[in-house]
Amino acid sequence: MDVMSKVSKENYKGVRDFYPEDQFIQNYIFSVWKKTMHSFGFEQYDASLLESTELYEAKSGEEIVGGQTYNFIDRGDRKVTLRPEMTPTVARMIAKKKNELSFPLRWFSIPNLFRYERPQRGRLREHWQLNADLFGIDSIDADVEMIEIAYTLLQNFGLNDSQFEIKINNRRLINKIFSDMKLDDIQAHKLSKLLDKKSKIDDFDEQAEAITGKPFSLKIRADETIEAIISKLRSRGISNVSFSPELMRGFDYYTDIVFEVFDTNPANNRSLFGGGRYNDLLDIFGEEKVPAVGFGMGDVTIRDVLETYDLLPKYKTETDLYICIFNDSFTNIASELASKIRETGINVIVDYTGKKIGDQVKRANKKQIPFVVCIGNDEIESGKFKLKIMESGEEKEVKREQIAEFIKNNK
Amino acid sequence: MDVMSKVSKENYKGVRDFYPEDQFIQNYIFSVWKKTMHSFGFEQYDASLLESTELYEAKSGEEIVGGQTYNFIDRGDRKVTLRPEMTPTVARMIAKKKNELSFPLRWFSIPNLFRYERPQRGRLREHWQLNADLFGIDSIDADVEMIEIAYTLLQNFGLNDSQFEIKINNRRLINKIFSDMKLDDIQAHKLSKLLDKKSKIDDFDEQAEAITGKPFSLKIRADETIEAIISKLRSRGISNVSFSPELMRGFDYYTDIVFEVFDTNPANNRSLFGGGRYNDLLDIFGEEKVPAVGFGMGDVTIRDVLETYDLLPKYKTETDLYICIFNDSFTNIASELASKIRETGINVIVDYTGKKIGDQVKRANKKQIPFVVCIGNDEIESGKFKLKIMESGEEKEVKREQIAEFIKNNK
Repeated sequence: MDVMSKVSKENYKGVRDFYPEDQFIQNYIFSVWKKTMHSFGFEQYDASLLESTELYEAKSGEEIVGGQTYNFIDRGDRKVTLRPEMTPTVARMIAKKKNELSFPLRWFSIPNLFRYERPQRGRLREHWQLNADLFGIDSIDADVEMIEIAYTLLQNFGLNDSQFEIKINNRRLINKIFSDMKLDDIQAHKLSKLLDKKSKIDDFDEQAEAITGKPFSLKIRADETIEAIISKLRSRGISNVSFSPELMRGFDYYTDIVFEVFDTNPANNRSLFGGGRYNDLLDIFGEEKVPAVGFGMGDVTIRDVLETYDLLPKYKTETDLYICIFNDSFTNIASELASKIRETGINVIVDYTGKKIGDQVKRANKKQIPFVVCIGNDEIESGKFKLKIMESGEEKEVKREQIAEFIKNNK
Repeated sequence: MDVMSKVSKENYKGVRDFYPEDQFIQNYIFSVWKKTMHSFGFEQYDASLLESTELYEAKSGEEIVGGQTYNFIDRGDRKVTLRPEMTPTVARMIAKKKNELSFPLRWFSIPNLFRYERPQRGRLREHWQLNADLFGIDSIDADVEMIEIAYTLLQNFGLNDSQFEIKINNRRLINKIFSDMKLDDIQAHKLSKLLDKKSKIDDFDEQAEAITGKPFSLKIRADETIEAIISKLRSRGISNVSFSPELMRGFDYYTDIVFEVFDTNPANNRSLFGGGRYNDLLDIFGEEKVPAVGFGMGDVTIRDVLETYDLLPKYKTETDLYICIFNDSFTNIASELASKIRETGINVIVDYTGKKIGDQVKRANKKQIPFVVCIGNDEIESGKFKLKIMESGEEKEVKREQIAEFIKNNK
């Protein structure tokens, strides 16, 4: 082929390739997510990333309406969106089968989400996110459970209480302040967006006054709901939690409590993830309300945190045994042996590259495969194999039918 | 909200929602795929479904060029495609890191793939596919390994040898016939597409003659490569394999052997999946050739087959224990107990719906959760709990700290 016309090897801008070492980390993150969600009795669901655009037009955060989604028209003239978040999808699914489903529902999913934006650290165009929601219970016990899960997730990733903190607010509290101040919808919306950025701007007071036309103060106390939530969390040993009146969270659909988890590292005091209660979301489908509380935790952020705190696991192969052969005439015998051993649940590679035996063993070593066996005439004749334990370099002489058992007992 | 303007609850046409019962099946299929691929020493990779359109323009099957992909232009004027197959992506990834990667590579992935087509049975707009490839070995041992894996996958799903058959052909053999017949590229291409549909059309001979201008016969014998492959497979106990000269496979990139697995059910003698050797694919990146052999197996087809043969597993909850409480005052005690038990690896739900205790137990039963414990004054005072084993209806009196152990030993 003409070199001039060659195709680019780069992936599409702002998305990632996952080579096996990357996928290993991704699988680790997904497995902690799944294990933790299962431990609280949550069930996994999923959906396609393709959704009708109208799903996002009805009610969503400013950022999404503001043209940061991937939209296109399909050949049937339908407006299609690559989902930017999972909540509208799960609300749609629940609205659809509302009468068949038995509430409360504890549901989680690990969707990939898309945003059209300038790629930057921690903000790619595609990322995966754990979405966890509890539907059908409108009580602080459900709120507390979701915050406890958020806490447990970070614990299960190996973080300790001093490395993160949980901030809580109540939308009702803020809405009451806005209504006491007699703000109209536009002023309230602008002020809540400003509050969300409070820690990043110097002239908050001036900007707030410019919006509202009067001095604005956030010197307010936690309400009963927040106090009860914090007290319940403390009784479960979760003490890195506090009231934060400026916490708003981006999405407009939250109706009651909101919470957000922050990295306490002073060099990088960023938001890790968060969620809240949204009791009105089924409205858009013309369905009766279903109370809901949930959160989303992204893979890019969590990977970054684990890297910072040196909590990422080291790559480890799934392969247990590497079979080397002295020459091509042993391929069939090696493959038959491999089949037998695989039946016992052990993972086996047969090397039929035709390379020298020493190079084959070197390759097994490079791939950190824990056990190696070589097959040649001596082994076939005697029925005895030298099983090499790569970590110690030790060699054990075992019979053909003992190989699987030995590996099981020593891996 | 106005009822007239309510949003549709339906998913986008031709894609699926996965409610927990559906996701359970999906997870089962993925787990058999992963377990089998790991047993042969394969490593998992992944990539984004967004790819530059040019990746598919260089070399691909007619069906894809023919406008059946999802393409759109992004805001940066880039042509983007939702991947219709994984092979070009994995070829791109390997081309990119060719010098760092240590061959041979045994790689698999479970991507979702997109095709713009009229939805019909087994052919949705989005489906998931196991993609398995062995890169870097140009020998029939690699071909045999891939066919052995295809066989083992179906075995691991519970199919027996009489329920499916594997057909093999060699592109070189067919290409030689075409060149002996002095067919030009267009004739050869048309004839190979026709061969792919041979079993579905009545007037194959007439249509073939119309393309080639002369009588066409497929009365040919297997070549040495195919005979050696079949013989090696038989020696590993795989006998439901045969030579099939009309087998072509849709994609143009296969260079040597191709194989396809068919359901033998006479009522539904369909193709299940297939693959082959493609040694030229890195060409399009201006890179040196890397020999490759692989296959793809779709979730929709395999689910359908398992359903037909009654091999789908029954839904089973991941939750082990359901804690009921007599009233709200026990919420905290129940939640603390749940936390402790979760630390031992047991999955626990606490019911704080406020419903009657009988209704709580009924709910646990409906969800088929195997163990239930109820918390009230008696239990708190005595420190002894009645653990109900739902399957037998039996009740065991256990101490608080014995609950976890009892469940571990009896689940």
